[in-house]
Amino acid sequence: MDEPKQDPVLTVQAIGEQGLLKIVQSFCQADLIGDDAAVLITQPGRSLIVTTDILVDGVHFSDQTTSSEDAGWRAAAANLSDLAAMGATPLGIAVGLGLPENVPVVWVEGLYRGLTACLSQYKSAIVGGDLCRSPVITIAITAFGEAEPNRIIRRSAAQPGDVIVVTGFHGASRAGLELLLHPESGRSLNEDDRAMLIQAHQRPNPRLDVVELLWRLRQGVEPQRRGDAEKIKEVQEGIQAIAALYSTLTFTPAPLTPHPSPLTHIAGMDSSDGLADAVIQICRASRVGARIERSQMPIAPALTKWMGTEQALEWALYGGEDFELVLCLPLEWAQLLVEQLGGSAAIVGTITTAQEVWLVDTNGNAPDERLTLEQGFQHFSS
Amino acid sequence: MDEPKQDPVLTVQAIGEQGLLKIVQSFCQADLIGDDAAVLITQPGRSLIVTTDILVDGVHFSDQTTSSEDAGWRAAAANLSDLAAMGATPLGIAVGLGLPENVPVVWVEGLYRGLTACLSQYKSAIVGGDLCRSPVITIAITAFGEAEPNRIIRRSAAQPGDVIVVTGFHGASRAGLELLLHPESGRSLNEDDRAMLIQAHQRPNPRLDVVELLWRLRQGVEPQRRGDAEKIKEVQEGIQAIAALYSTLTFTPAPLTPHPSPLTHIAGMDSSDGLADAVIQICRASRVGARIERSQMPIAPALTKWMGTEQALEWALYGGEDFELVLCLPLEWAQLLVEQLGGSAAIVGTITTAQEVWLVDTNGNAPDERLTLEQGFQHFSS
Repeated sequence: MDEPKQDPVLTVQAIGEQGLLKIVQSFCQADLIGDDAAVLITQPGRSLIVTTDILVDGVHFSDQTTSSEDAGWRAAAANLSDLAAMGATPLGIAVGLGLPENVPVVWVEGLYRGLTACLSQYKSAIVGGDLCRSPVITIAITAFGEAEPNRIIRRSAAQPGDVIVVTGFHGASRAGLELLLHPESGRSLNEDDRAMLIQAHQRPNPRLDVVELLWRLRQGVEPQRRGDAEKIKEVQEGIQAIAALYSTLTFTPAPLTPHPSPLTHIAGMDSSDGLADAVIQICRASRVGARIERSQMPIAPALTKWMGTEQALEWALYGGEDFELVLCLPLEWAQLLVEQLGGSAAIVGTITTAQEVWLVDTNGNAPDERLTLEQGFQHFSS
Repeated sequence: MDEPKQDPVLTVQAIGEQGLLKIVQSFCQADLIGDDAAVLITQPGRSLIVTTDILVDGVHFSDQTTSSEDAGWRAAAANLSDLAAMGATPLGIAVGLGLPENVPVVWVEGLYRGLTACLSQYKSAIVGGDLCRSPVITIAITAFGEAEPNRIIRRSAAQPGDVIVVTGFHGASRAGLELLLHPESGRSLNEDDRAMLIQAHQRPNPRLDVVELLWRLRQGVEPQRRGDAEKIKEVQEGIQAIAALYSTLTFTPAPLTPHPSPLTHIAGMDSSDGLADAVIQICRASRVGARIERSQMPIAPALTKWMGTEQALEWALYGGEDFELVLCLPLEWAQLLVEQLGGSAAIVGTITTAQEVWLVDTNGNAPDERLTLEQGFQHFSS
C-alpha cells in the first residue's frame, strides 16, 4: 500500500533568510526595525538594568516537554523575572536565534508567538535581534529595564532582623516537568491539579506586579514613620526646656535617632535556580545568615498530596524555575506586602547574623538542617 | 617507545561552573557582578541604542583561522561597529556563552581576553553575561550605547544630492581570510602586506572615532552656514524696502528659505556585510538610488597587486567584515570629514533619485553595472 501523501514541512532553509526575517520582524516593534541597532527612549534619571540568558535545545528546553510557543514564553518570563528581581520595569528584549536549516518555519513562528504573548502581558516587546545558522537551536535573550536608582533591589542589602518573604508556591514547576516527562506519574492528582502544575512549568509568570506593589505599599507605610521624627523633636525640645532650667550647667543633649527606617532597604532575587539557592545567594552577598521555617514554606497542596511532605519540600527548595521573588525586608513592610499579595505569598523566615542558612522546624518534628549551595542546581555538573 | 607524557588539557567540565564563573568574572566590570542583572547609568536625555549578534563555531569563526582571542576581539568589534553605525557611544556589552564540556579553559580565557582587549580600546567593558552548556560554542553579544536623539545615524535619512563617504579600505578582511585558509596563496605579497591583510581580518577596528569626529566637524561648518540666514534677512529687508515704495499695492513677499542645511541630516550604516550591501540597504531604506564610481573605491593597493583590479573590486564590494562606515551626507561636510580622516577614506559616489544602485566608470573603461542585494551575503544561502 502507498503511504498517504503528506505536505512536506516548510523549513527555514526553504524560505531563506529574507523569508525568515519577514516572519520574525512581524513579531517585533515596527519602528525599531531596519537599522544596525534599536533606539529606545529611557526616562531621565533612571538606571538602565540589563540581563542576558542563553538557552540551548536539549539543555534548557526540548520538544518532549515544551512546544516552541512555551519555550518562547518561558524564555521571555525568565528574563523579565530577572528584571523584577532587580526592581526594574521592562523596556524590551533583544532576541538572538541560532537555527539548524531543517527547523520547521512553524516552530520559529511558535517561538515568537510565545515570546510576544508573555511580553505583551507585561507591556513589553521585542526590540531587536539577530538570526544565524547553528547546528543546535539556540535562543539568546537580553532584556533591558529601568529603575529609579534608589529603588534597585540588590542581593547584598539584607540586614539581620529582616524577614524573608516568598511571593508564591515553589516546587510546582519541577512537578509540572515530571508530569510532562512521565505522563503516567501523579495518578493521585485530579485534572485541575495536574493542569495547574503543568501550567506552572510551561507558563511561569514573572512577578513584575510585586515590584509595583512594593513601592505603592512603601508610600502607605511612610507617613506612619514620619511620626517618629516628630516624636524625637518633641523629646528633644523637652530636654532642652529642662536643660534651660539649669542654665548654670553646660548641657548638650545626646543626639536621638529613630530606629533605621523600614523603608530604606530591601534585598532580593528571583527563585529561578530554586528557593534554597535564592536564600543562600542573598545571605552570601549580604554577609548574613537565615533561618527558614519548614511549616511556612509555600508548597502547593497538590504537590504534598501527590508525593508527601519530604519530597515536596525537596522540590520546593531545589526544584527551581518557579520564578517567584525572594525578598528580605523589615517586618512591617513585609506584612503589608504578604497581606496585599494574598494567596501563597508568605513570610518564611528571618535574616540572622550567623553566616549560615538553616531550615528549622519550630514544632520540633524534624531536626534543623543546614542548607548549602552544593545541593542546589549546578549547570555544569554531570 | 613510550610517548612523552603530556599535561592533560584542563577543560570546562574539569573546573565546573563555579570555577568557570570565577575566570569569566575576572574579565567583567567588578561592581556589576553578583545580581540578577547589571545596573548602568545613562546620561539624561540620551537615547538607548541596542544591538545583538549571535555567533556560532564553524559558521562565524573557526579554530582554523581564528584563535579564541581573535574571535573575542572580532565579536566585540562587530557590535561596537553597529553602535558606531548608529552614531552611538558604547556603554557596555553583555555576553552569553554556550560551551561544550570539552572546551579547554584556555580557550575561554582567550575569548574574554580578546573581548576585553577590544572593549578597553574604546573605553567600554563587559557588564553582564550568562554561561551554559551547549553542543556547539555559541557567543551571543548584546551591546548598549547611547546617543543624543538628534545625532542618531539612520539608514533612512539619505537625500538625493548627498555624497557617499567610505571611511576606509574594503576587501582587506576577505583577503586576510583567504590567506589564513590557504597560506600558500598570495605569494606576490611581501610580509608587511600579508600581515596587514591578516590583521584586517583578525583585529578589525570599529569606527567609533568617526562618530566623535563627525560632530566636532559639524561645529566647524555651522558658523559658515549661519551666514545664509543673514543673507536671506538682507534680501527680505531689501524686498520690503522696495515694496514700501509702492504703498498703494498689497504686497506679500514670497518666503525665502536657504538650501536645506548641510548639517541636519546624515544617513549611514557599517559595511559588515560588504560595501555593496551597505549602499543598497541605505538606498532601500531612504527610497533613493546611488551611483558609485569604480575609480574611487578604497581598495588596499596590496589587494589589487595580488589579484588584479576586478577580483579586488569584487571583494571590496561583497567581501564583508571590513567594519568601516558608509555615510551619506552633504558634500561640504563630507569633504571636511574625508580630509580629517585622511588615509583611505574617500567620497565614492552620490545619492540619486532613481531607486537603483549603479557602479559606474567615468573613464569609460568598463560598462555601468547595476548592483543588487542578491549578489551580497546571505546567511541562510547554501
